[in-house]
Amino acid sequence: MIKKEIQLKVPATVANLVCGFDILGMAIHEPYDEMELRLLSDPIIKIKHLDDFGLPEKAEKNVVGVVLRKIMEHTQMKQGFEVIIKKNIKPGSGLGSSAASAAGAAFGANVLLGKPFSYPQLVYFAIYGEELASGTRHADNIAPCIYGGITLVKSSRPLDIIPLTSPDLLVTAVHPQVEIKTSDARQILKNKIPLKDAVTQWGNIAGLITGILKNDVDLIGRSLNDVVIEPTRSILIPKFSEIKEKSILEGALGGGISGSGPSIFMLSKKKETAEKIAKIMCEEYRKIGVRQYVYVSKINQQGITIL
Amino acid sequence: MIKKEIQLKVPATVANLVCGFDILGMAIHEPYDEMELRLLSDPIIKIKHLDDFGLPEKAEKNVVGVVLRKIMEHTQMKQGFEVIIKKNIKPGSGLGSSAASAAGAAFGANVLLGKPFSYPQLVYFAIYGEELASGTRHADNIAPCIYGGITLVKSSRPLDIIPLTSPDLLVTAVHPQVEIKTSDARQILKNKIPLKDAVTQWGNIAGLITGILKNDVDLIGRSLNDVVIEPTRSILIPKFSEIKEKSILEGALGGGISGSGPSIFMLSKKKETAEKIAKIMCEEYRKIGVRQYVYVSKINQQGITIL
Repeated sequence: MIKKEIQLKVPATVANLVCGFDILGMAIHEPYDEMELRLLSDPIIKIKHLDDFGLPEKAEKNVVGVVLRKIMEHTQMKQGFEVIIKKNIKPGSGLGSSAASAAGAAFGANVLLGKPFSYPQLVYFAIYGEELASGTRHADNIAPCIYGGITLVKSSRPLDIIPLTSPDLLVTAVHPQVEIKTSDARQILKNKIPLKDAVTQWGNIAGLITGILKNDVDLIGRSLNDVVIEPTRSILIPKFSEIKEKSILEGALGGGISGSGPSIFMLSKKKETAEKIAKIMCEEYRKIGVRQYVYVSKINQQGITIL
Repeated sequence: MIKKEIQLKVPATVANLVCGFDILGMAIHEPYDEMELRLLSDPIIKIKHLDDFGLPEKAEKNVVGVVLRKIMEHTQMKQGFEVIIKKNIKPGSGLGSSAASAAGAAFGANVLLGKPFSYPQLVYFAIYGEELASGTRHADNIAPCIYGGITLVKSSRPLDIIPLTSPDLLVTAVHPQVEIKTSDARQILKNKIPLKDAVTQWGNIAGLITGILKNDVDLIGRSLNDVVIEPTRSILIPKFSEIKEKSILEGALGGGISGSGPSIFMLSKKKETAEKIAKIMCEEYRKIGVRQYVYVSKINQQGITIL
């Protein structure tokens, strides 16, 4: 049966996962966007935002609209979509805000159309939304948003996504209210890196993947080191090193920058540890008068869910 | 019961495994060295080579001697060792010849002493042999020789070795009789690599590890790409690209340079494919009048075995 209307819970995502720059991503439970999609009898796209982030509602300027338009072109459908969005994932947070909109649009449309598309196809459509938002065609937030858990984007062209089984870990994420543009975070990166550092990095990636697939939490902890991106990008994030150091002292397995920042995330085995880390994060930002949102949740194994 | 005498079959190994430069290695069945070790009542080391590779038999100049000396120092033992070696893994082949001597020495001594050491400790001792042979302290051949199968050397300092389950694949390896010094093969590498290439490489490594652990042979095939080392090093190996191209056309999953060359290896699902690839390798080198040894065997899950 084809549904005419659907309500979705679309989760935030953490891209990069410390050493997995541009290839790994993970869905979390908090924060999440709420989306409502319904089929319209005319081939038009109506978008309404219930949040106050000031995002454009014109279809061709909105991530959701661009993704839906691609799907409408592809299917040559005669109908259209109405979408009502309440975003809780703040744009520019580094928690996959644009990816949530893009993935939610593709996922929701697929359900309303009777599921003609596979997950890789949904990612393919959603990437057009990321392109509008950030200028780059990347899938490292979209993939975990749609698949849930931790995903590997082995390559972007051709698109090759591999869902990984995810360990049952807690994630603490903090979004300090400072602005870092994705383009700045990209520009600060060096075009060339020492081969020696690359070898260290891929040793850690290999260790992290093995730890995830074997559910070896200690190995995950030993592998959460980024010698390539973090040393440069963390400069842009106030209190990064203090938070990381104190979190690990408190028992975090490790963590780092979420996406291109400014959000920071930490992984823990126990809920108590994750909550203590949340406190540390709040305290550090209060000290310097920076407002912050903190989220504690498990790794989200489901990804987008239908309400 | 402590044995007084032991005979070992010590296998060749393939380091790097295409995209896993400096971190991955794999044991194969052919070729292998034969080693005989026995305890002596005096704290001396006697080494005798039954092969004709002209390796020094003085303990301090022989890989085996250096490893045994380390173990003798560590245990403060009053006894010594006599070792008779018939090497079949040619030095300089890129098939882990020095690693086999070093690993065999450590493994054999451990058995003769009643197994006081763990596998990581054996790797630690054997690395001194690699250092003598090549000037670098690397474990990517030693680890699979001792553990068997495919191993990940997540980091060399501190030593962190993770054995991976290995898929049941066939390996075809060819050793063309041309000389490439490990030091030359190192020198030709660039000190810095583009970040873009590093991301492609670690995507492939993550895919390869996932393929190995999930026994997903197609994913292994899709991940066997090296954009960092192979484009430079393969220049030193005659007929490399012809052999690789024809092998893949014949059905190989993929392959590349074994260690720092000149040996080349290819992975296949079926024995017939592996044997056809052996023929291709022979033909290509015959065309240019280069003598070659070709080996077809499964991935060696056991590593060193006691006869």
